[in-house]
Amino acid sequence: MRGITLVLPVAVPKAAFPVRHMLVPTPPMAEKPKKPQKLRARLPRGLEDRGPAAIAATRQMVEKIREVYERYGFEPVETPAMEFTDALGKFLPDQDRPNEGVFSFQDDDEQWISLRYDLTAPLARYVAENFDALPKPYRSYRAGYVYRNEKPGPGRFRQFMQFDADTVGSASPAADAEMCMMAADTMEALGIPRGSYLVKVNNRKVLDGVRDALGIADDGQWLTVMRAIDKLDRLGIFGVQQLLGDGRKDESGDFTKGAGLKAEDIALVVSAIEQGAQIDARLRDSKIGQEGRDELDAISNLVSASGYGPDQIVIDPSVVRGLEYYTGPVYEAELTLETKDEKGRPVRFGSVGGGGRYDGLVSRFRGEPVPATGFSIGVSRLQAALTMLGKLDTRPDFGPVVVTVFDRDRVADYQKMVAQLRNANIRAELYLGNPKNMGNQLKYADRRNSPCVIIQGSDEKARGEIQIKDLIEGAKAAAAIASNQEWRETRPAQFSCGEDEIVAKVREVLARHDVKWG
Amino acid sequence: MRGITLVLPVAVPKAAFPVRHMLVPTPPMAEKPKKPQKLRARLPRGLEDRGPAAIAATRQMVEKIREVYERYGFEPVETPAMEFTDALGKFLPDQDRPNEGVFSFQDDDEQWISLRYDLTAPLARYVAENFDALPKPYRSYRAGYVYRNEKPGPGRFRQFMQFDADTVGSASPAADAEMCMMAADTMEALGIPRGSYLVKVNNRKVLDGVRDALGIADDGQWLTVMRAIDKLDRLGIFGVQQLLGDGRKDESGDFTKGAGLKAEDIALVVSAIEQGAQIDARLRDSKIGQEGRDELDAISNLVSASGYGPDQIVIDPSVVRGLEYYTGPVYEAELTLETKDEKGRPVRFGSVGGGGRYDGLVSRFRGEPVPATGFSIGVSRLQAALTMLGKLDTRPDFGPVVVTVFDRDRVADYQKMVAQLRNANIRAELYLGNPKNMGNQLKYADRRNSPCVIIQGSDEKARGEIQIKDLIEGAKAAAAIASNQEWRETRPAQFSCGEDEIVAKVREVLARHDVKWG
Repeated sequence: MRGITLVLPVAVPKAAFPVRHMLVPTPPMAEKPKKPQKLRARLPRGLEDRGPAAIAATRQMVEKIREVYERYGFEPVETPAMEFTDALGKFLPDQDRPNEGVFSFQDDDEQWISLRYDLTAPLARYVAENFDALPKPYRSYRAGYVYRNEKPGPGRFRQFMQFDADTVGSASPAADAEMCMMAADTMEALGIPRGSYLVKVNNRKVLDGVRDALGIADDGQWLTVMRAIDKLDRLGIFGVQQLLGDGRKDESGDFTKGAGLKAEDIALVVSAIEQGAQIDARLRDSKIGQEGRDELDAISNLVSASGYGPDQIVIDPSVVRGLEYYTGPVYEAELTLETKDEKGRPVRFGSVGGGGRYDGLVSRFRGEPVPATGFSIGVSRLQAALTMLGKLDTRPDFGPVVVTVFDRDRVADYQKMVAQLRNANIRAELYLGNPKNMGNQLKYADRRNSPCVIIQGSDEKARGEIQIKDLIEGAKAAAAIASNQEWRETRPAQFSCGEDEIVAKVREVLARHDVKWG
Repeated sequence: MRGITLVLPVAVPKAAFPVRHMLVPTPPMAEKPKKPQKLRARLPRGLEDRGPAAIAATRQMVEKIREVYERYGFEPVETPAMEFTDALGKFLPDQDRPNEGVFSFQDDDEQWISLRYDLTAPLARYVAENFDALPKPYRSYRAGYVYRNEKPGPGRFRQFMQFDADTVGSASPAADAEMCMMAADTMEALGIPRGSYLVKVNNRKVLDGVRDALGIADDGQWLTVMRAIDKLDRLGIFGVQQLLGDGRKDESGDFTKGAGLKAEDIALVVSAIEQGAQIDARLRDSKIGQEGRDELDAISNLVSASGYGPDQIVIDPSVVRGLEYYTGPVYEAELTLETKDEKGRPVRFGSVGGGGRYDGLVSRFRGEPVPATGFSIGVSRLQAALTMLGKLDTRPDFGPVVVTVFDRDRVADYQKMVAQLRNANIRAELYLGNPKNMGNQLKYADRRNSPCVIIQGSDEKARGEIQIKDLIEGAKAAAAIASNQEWRETRPAQFSCGEDEIVAKVREVLARHDVKWG
C-alpha cells in the first residue's frame, strides 16, 4: 500500500506496537552497547547528496536568477518547509493518487502538517496572513527546496529546488507579461542563447471556453481532454485527435482510452489548440474563451512593445500546465535544445519552469478576490540541463595548501605555520591523518587538488628553513612517491626558503598558477 | 498523547477514516466550489516566515562563515532534509520524551523516514556510504535547515539553520584544536570582538573518569549528575552541590530532586569541574579521565602555539554538551556579552555553537572505528544575537524605480520604459495596481523605498518628455499627495527630461543618493 502516514494495521493494540523501537533503532551511546547491529548507510529513493561542483553550480545559478528577479523589482521573502496541510491544499497534477504527493504528519494537537510541495501555496498563505502589512501589488521571490511523495524515477526527485517570483494583487495582463519577459531574461542570464529556449503562453480561460463550447460537464472526461492536449508536442496533432476520440494504440501496442468526443468536437479542440488554425465559430461565441484570447492579445502587445520577439515569447494554445490552481494565463519556459531520451532518440529537453495566474489561491483565506500570478524555475532540473549543455563551470576548485607532518612530535610547529597562512587569507590546513608515510600525505594533497604543500624535516628545522613543493608543476611525479626515502632522493618541483618567508613564497606559487579561491 | 505519527484511534476501521478529506480540505478549483470554506491563514507553532532584512542578514552571515571554513581547507557537501530514521539514530538531548524530537513518516515500503534533527548524523551516513571514494581525513562543511519536533517556546523554533564543519578520519587532538580555532575565527569574522565571546573546551572522557571514580552504574543517576554540572553557569557551585546531593529548592519554591551523592563524592565532582580546584586523588587514578586530561593538554598547546589566547579559547571542565553521541573533546562557543532575560535581569547571551568528537557515529555503519570531530554554528540563534547587538546591517534596501501609469491605455509605452531601465541594469518596475489614483502609486513607490518614479501624462507625451520625481528628496511631501490634481499643482523634487534621456537622468538621481542594489 502506498500511504503517507496511515499505514498502522488497525487491529493491533496501540500499546503493543513497538513505536519506541522503530524510532530508536540503536541504544544511545551512553548505554555502551556490546554488539551494535551494523546499519546500512543509504538514502531513501529519490533523494540525493550534493558535492562541491553541484553546490557551486547551484550557487552560481541562484545568484544569477536572483539578480534578474531583483532587477524586476521583486523582493525576497521565505516561508518554512512545513505548513498546515489544509493551508497548502491539494493541487498536485497527479489525480490518480489523490492521497499521495505530499509528506504529512500529525502534530501533538492532532492537526495535520505537510512538507510544502511547491512555493506558491505557502506564499498564498503568507500573503493572506500578512495582507494589510504588505505593499500591494506585492512582488516577492524565493528559492527553496520542495518535497513530493511521488514514485521516484530517472530525473524525478522527491526533494528539489524551485526559484519563484509572484505578484499578488494585480489583475492586469501586464503582470503576466512581465513574468514571461522575466522568464526569457533569466534563461539568457543563465547563458542559454536566444533560439535555444522559448517561453510559451496560453490561457486557461481559452481552455475553459473550449469546455463551455463542448458542453462537457464530467470532470473526468474534461481531464482526459486536457491530457490529450498536453501531449501535442510528443504525439503531434494526429495522436491528439485519436486521444480526443476513441483512443490510441502506441508503438508497444498499449491502448489508451480516449475522451470519446465526436468528430465535430474534435475539430473544435483542434481549432483552439493548433497554431494558425481557424477559430471554430462556437468557440468565438464563448464569453470566457473570448476573454482569454483578449488577455493573450494584451500580453502579446506588451512583450513586443518591450522588444521581445517570437524567438523568445510565443502564444501557444496547446500549453496546459498541470497544477489545478491556475485560473488565467499560464506560461512554460522550455529548452528547445535537443538531448537524447533513454533510447538514444533525439528529444527536446523540455520544460524547465512555468507558472500562471492563480486568482483563487489567496482568496481561499481572505473570502475576497485576490488576483495573483507567478513564475517558478525548476532549479534542479535546469541545473541538470545546463550541466549537460556545458553551461556551468564545474571545474574542481583548488584545495588548500597542506602543511605536512614530518616529525610527529612537532605538530604544534606545523599548526603554527598553518595559522600564519590562514591569517594571510591563504586557504591552508594541517595534515590530520596518520603522518607516518609522507607519500600518503602527498597523495592526500593531490586528491584535494592542493596547489602546494609545506614540508619541514629536522634538517630544515635546524637551518630555519621550509620546503615548498609545487604540486601543480609536480603533479605527475607526486603519485609515484611512496616513502620518505624516495621523496628525499627526487624532490620534484620543490624549493627551500626561510621559515619567515612562508607567506611570501606560497603567494608566489599561487600567483604563478593563478590560483584563486571562490 | 504527544506522538509523531501514530495517533490513529486503533478501533476505527481504516476504510471509514476520512483520509482523503483530511488531505484535501477544499475541492480542486476545477470543480468550481459554490461556497468555499474560508481557511485560516496561519503557520504551525515554532515556525516563522522571514522577510528581506532577515534573509539578507543570513546571506551575509553564511557567506562570512563559509569564507572562514573554506580558508581552513573544508569543502562543501550537502545531504537532503530526510533520511531513514534508523540511519539518523536518536541522540537528541531531551531524554524525557524518547518518542519525540523528530518529525517522521512511513514510506510506501513501510520504512520510516525522518527529517534531519542536526547535520552531523546525515554527514556520518554520507561518509559511511561514500567511504572509499572520499579523501581521508575528509574535511567538509554544510549549511542547512534542521527540524525538531519539540514543544516550541520563546526563541525555540522547530526549523532552524545550522552551519557545520566536520573532520572524519582523524583521531588527532589537532583536529579538535582546529575546530576550536575555527570557532574563534568565525566569531571574529562575524564582527564579535575578542572578549565578547569564548570557546570553552572540555572532554567527555574526563566526565567518564568522574563516573568511573564515583562508581555510578545507573544511567538515570548519571544523567542527573551531568545535568547538575551543566547548570554551573546559572546556579553557581553551591546550587550544583545541592543538585548533586539531596536536591534544590529554587526561588519560586519548586523543588528539584538531586542525584543523591555522598559528601565525598560531591567533593570529587567539584574537584573535576571547578576551575583551579585541586584534582581529587581518585580522579587522578582513572585511566579514561587521565586520557581526557592529556587530550585537553594537547589541545591547549596547539591553540597557544597558533597564537590563540585565553580570551579566545579556554579549557572549562564544566562544559557538558547535550548530544549523546560525543565521545571525546567537546566545545562550546559562547557569547559572553550581556543581554536581558524575560524579567529584565542581565544574563549572558550564552551558547551560539558547539560540537565535539563523535567517534561512534560513522562506526555504526562501518563496523570499524572511524574517528570524527565537528563543530556546528546555530545560525538562527547567532543571527538573533547579532541583530540584538547591532552587528548586522538590517537597513532596508532601496526598492525599484517605479514607472507609474498615468493613462491606462498607454501601458505598453510605460512597459517599454521599464524595459529600457532594466536593460541598463537599473532595478525598475511598472506599477501593476489599479492606476486610477496617482497618489496611491506614489505611496506604493514610497512604501517600496523607491529612489524615484517616472511619470508621463498626455501633455508630456505630446512634448516627447517624461517627469522624474526624486522620492528621496521629496520623501516628506509624497505621503500628503492625494490626487492627480494636487500632484499637478505641487510637483515636489521633480524635473522633466526627454524620453530618450530616461536612463541617463535616472542614473544621475541614483548617483546623487549613492543608491546601490545588493
